[in-house]
Amino acid sequence: MYEVEVKVPADHGDVRDALESVGAAERRTVEQADTYYDAPHRDFAETDEALRVRRVSEAGAEDADARITYKGPKVDSESKAREEIETGVEDGADAGALFEALGFAPAATVRKTRTYYAYDGYTVVLDDVEGLGQFVEVERESEDVASAREGAFDVLRRLGLDPDEQIRTSYLGLLLE
Amino acid sequence: MYEVEVKVPADHGDVRDALESVGAAERRTVEQADTYYDAPHRDFAETDEALRVRRVSEAGAEDADARITYKGPKVDSESKAREEIETGVEDGADAGALFEALGFAPAATVRKTRTYYAYDGYTVVLDDVEGLGQFVEVERESEDVASAREGAFDVLRRLGLDPDEQIRTSYLGLLLE
Repeated sequence: MYEVEVKVPADHGDVRDALESVGAAERRTVEQADTYYDAPHRDFAETDEALRVRRVSEAGAEDADARITYKGPKVDSESKAREEIETGVEDGADAGALFEALGFAPAATVRKTRTYYAYDGYTVVLDDVEGLGQFVEVERESEDVASAREGAFDVLRRLGLDPDEQIRTSYLGLLLE
Repeated sequence: MYEVEVKVPADHGDVRDALESVGAAERRTVEQADTYYDAPHRDFAETDEALRVRRVSEAGAEDADARITYKGPKVDSESKAREEIETGVEDGADAGALFEALGFAPAATVRKTRTYYAYDGYTVVLDDVEGLGQFVEVERESEDVASAREGAFDVLRRLGLDPDEQIRTSYLGLLLE
């Protein structure tokens, strides 16, 4: 199973209107702080891998969820599909400290406010990224990367967005540029 | 605070009788599977570190708890105290797969059935270790390592066991011997 994601820069005001008019269902809004780690034994920039500790807090909630995620190299040059291995953790700070003890070094932290919508089998995500601005991601999990990517392009068009504006660079990459 | 542990090989039948006659309180029984990983960039045997994924299931229960633990080198030669960094994880298999994707290799898995008793301020643990046999551990946390050790020896004697049979090698070490 691959995570297919297509991302474009977009002003959220117009996109929210478009989502409402096509009948997309607004889900939760969360604050995410993603810390990415450098490996001691290989250069993740070269191998196109990533190790991330994500801490998530629901708007207005006290408790934070945390997850650790490994992202493998992109399997397809057209979209951003990658192998992802992920599990929830009890404590994000302890998970980060464990990776640091193993020799992994925190490289950068990406902070964003993220609002989820459900639309036509896809998740549409409105991201407001600290230091970068506003983006829209259309994503779904699929075994069939090509057709999921075409579907995601179609969703973008229906929201008045242009798939040709797709940005393949991660928020981390954009921040480090 | 230090974890003081004294472990001896012992047939559980006799020890259970002794625990009953001194009035020790039986607590829960769990199945533990501990997988230890080799690192891709340093030799944990040389650096005296360990990375472990522990999966625990209560006897008769469906769900398994899982934890990831980093153990640092012993902080000095007198005590056996180590730095430990640990957090619970949602899925032990995913956590293991994540470490493997990062280049860590499973070295060995220690499987045991563990029954806890509470007795006189100590925890008495009956371990039945796959491939190694039956052991009894007496343990408590204490600031005063010497007196806690003397107390643990005394508990062993009251259970008909001989502190001189103490084994300092870990189950992992015994399995790899």
